[in-house]
Amino acid sequence: MKRAVILAIGNELVEGLIIDTNSKYLSQRLKLAGYYVHKILTLPDRLDVLVKEISNAVREADLVISSGGLGPTDDDLTREAFAQALGLRLIVNESVADKLIERALKIYGKAPESVKKQAMILEGAQILENSVGTAPGQLLELDGKIVILLPGPPSELIPMFESVYERLKTGDELYTRRLKTLGIPEAILMDEYGPVIYSKQSVTVATMASYERGVEVRLTAPVEFREDVDEVFNRLRALLGKYVYAIDDEEIHDVVARALFEKGLTLSIAESCTGGMISSVMVDVAGISKVFRGSVVAYDNAIKTSLLSVPEVVIKTHGAVSEECVRAMSQGVRKLLGTDLALAVSGIAGPSGGTSEKPVGTVCVGIDGPRGTVSRTFHLRGERNTIRKRSTLVALNELRLYLLGL
Amino acid sequence: MKRAVILAIGNELVEGLIIDTNSKYLSQRLKLAGYYVHKILTLPDRLDVLVKEISNAVREADLVISSGGLGPTDDDLTREAFAQALGLRLIVNESVADKLIERALKIYGKAPESVKKQAMILEGAQILENSVGTAPGQLLELDGKIVILLPGPPSELIPMFESVYERLKTGDELYTRRLKTLGIPEAILMDEYGPVIYSKQSVTVATMASYERGVEVRLTAPVEFREDVDEVFNRLRALLGKYVYAIDDEEIHDVVARALFEKGLTLSIAESCTGGMISSVMVDVAGISKVFRGSVVAYDNAIKTSLLSVPEVVIKTHGAVSEECVRAMSQGVRKLLGTDLALAVSGIAGPSGGTSEKPVGTVCVGIDGPRGTVSRTFHLRGERNTIRKRSTLVALNELRLYLLGL
Repeated sequence: MKRAVILAIGNELVEGLIIDTNSKYLSQRLKLAGYYVHKILTLPDRLDVLVKEISNAVREADLVISSGGLGPTDDDLTREAFAQALGLRLIVNESVADKLIERALKIYGKAPESVKKQAMILEGAQILENSVGTAPGQLLELDGKIVILLPGPPSELIPMFESVYERLKTGDELYTRRLKTLGIPEAILMDEYGPVIYSKQSVTVATMASYERGVEVRLTAPVEFREDVDEVFNRLRALLGKYVYAIDDEEIHDVVARALFEKGLTLSIAESCTGGMISSVMVDVAGISKVFRGSVVAYDNAIKTSLLSVPEVVIKTHGAVSEECVRAMSQGVRKLLGTDLALAVSGIAGPSGGTSEKPVGTVCVGIDGPRGTVSRTFHLRGERNTIRKRSTLVALNELRLYLLGL
Repeated sequence: MKRAVILAIGNELVEGLIIDTNSKYLSQRLKLAGYYVHKILTLPDRLDVLVKEISNAVREADLVISSGGLGPTDDDLTREAFAQALGLRLIVNESVADKLIERALKIYGKAPESVKKQAMILEGAQILENSVGTAPGQLLELDGKIVILLPGPPSELIPMFESVYERLKTGDELYTRRLKTLGIPEAILMDEYGPVIYSKQSVTVATMASYERGVEVRLTAPVEFREDVDEVFNRLRALLGKYVYAIDDEEIHDVVARALFEKGLTLSIAESCTGGMISSVMVDVAGISKVFRGSVVAYDNAIKTSLLSVPEVVIKTHGAVSEECVRAMSQGVRKLLGTDLALAVSGIAGPSGGTSEKPVGTVCVGIDGPRGTVSRTFHLRGERNTIRKRSTLVALNELRLYLLGL
């Protein structure tokens, strides 16, 4: 299997000022293209460090991809470092330079000498056009190895990488499918369904358990075994049934939105501890206005009674975090906003507010709709924000299950 | 200056399945402790790769910190790799082993042999207790160098790192202050305030511009020059005035919440394109229930009129994305939820819905309160979610400015 090294370059990365999302993206894509990523290096904008590590990387790997350090300023040293490490000259590409000057004149009314720096190309390198920003990328083939220089901003890096993706395929490409589950612990899933999961020798299995996203099963094989992957995927999906809340790139809100679109049902939401997070996640979906009407964030109990018509006696008798309350909240918001369905959540996210009877992490979910009113109580763990995110996932999953029955 | 190398270990990292937040955290802290982090290495759970890179790292750096690979399973190889790289034995610590077995029996009713793996300690290493999970960390002093093995989960790594932080201080510790600004472009800020920003030779300056967070100025110096940093910080803060929305670790919602707490004012919110994101960000603040009553997410225009009492003629004449509409929304939600203040946002987040007169990115913010009703229109760039996040920042900033006048 061919080996790849990713270099993430920039002082802001080694100083912990920003988080590197490029390497995660590149790793995933390179794995599918058939590379074994055996190292990701995050390096400062320092010429000596860069030259040394680039030399090592090119010696060790079949593919070296860098991100960052292609800007016009003095601390952008990636081009220079590759030139020194590879013993190649940097040559100004006049056509690239003209475009950069033209662009600078148009935007700033002047073109400082420094913009030309971005037109310096390694001799023999192919120029990768930047459709979003200024710095072009570069691709060099060298003794059967490939070296690629990409700009740092993800909005520039991603389309540029995708434009050369086909060329990078090794012949060892992988095919992968993902099942995202909720409600079944990882150990039980692997134990109970092991015989199916491991039924094909060609298919490798990875699981990822996360409190905010549930348990994900990844099935991967060389592309020539894609049918094996699909077979295991389909059998496992059928066996897991309603535990599977989404597949592949889908998220829970995509699945819920699709179900609403398909059934032509409108939705409203009443939130308490989640404070608008569930609504915000649903609004991530483009076109959601066709089915999503709106929400009431009833953070204060007085709003639960005044606006959502939760009877005061319910809160007095059972508390604001109770199945009785979320049932009334879901009925109230459904009526108030005139929707087919309504979802309601109330819980104790902490750090304070917990009692021995209802500790921090107690979260109730209610749904009102054509099939009547349902409710359920969850006992979640973690800090305030972990509990709020997990509440969002479990609430939308309850809605997904309700929709399955419609 | 002492050099540090950070090793982030795990297949899930090099395969791009999860994002590495530990290294960002460690980088920031190590910089303050006086280290120059000249490399962050992300490596797979492979013994040969780990042994080689650990050997290099220990040769190059004064401090080597690893995260991950300390679990009980076969692919947890960090301990073994350090032992091989450093030529040290691994010895089972009986007291640690006893605790692990006791814990496993308590939780699972059985203690598989594998739990003892986590009690394997490098000879001469100090055990770093894990107050959250199972795997203890390890700290080794070796020919004036320090080697630290930390577990992967951030909730375990952070307290463990902090427990040894004092010991890591190099004598070159840094002192840093941050100003977070909105409303002044980076170039103008640096140009106009350059003489102040660069007034102390001891103070180094870094700026970070991000569309979702504004422009941040970081002032840093060796601790012995902390007074210089504070002086530049205070002068710059005074000069920048209302452009500074937060300082140091504060976020915009912390500042808004503090102002509400101090003035004893209650808040409600009416959201459209942000879909609950502003409310959700405010609810991030623990104790916010003292001042935040609730919100209406009026995604559908019918809800703007029915629930928020926006006159139909306003929407008909000016559109739902107009200053007239957000003014009416803020007045409506303030009255509906009975609060001292109300914030309202309506905008076009895209991808569709834009017109030549009101393109995607047009966002209106309205505030109603004791000082009357104010409104403002913004023209934002970017994709749907970028626009929604930037809208949240600018809306809360408008509220901050309104509160300054109360």
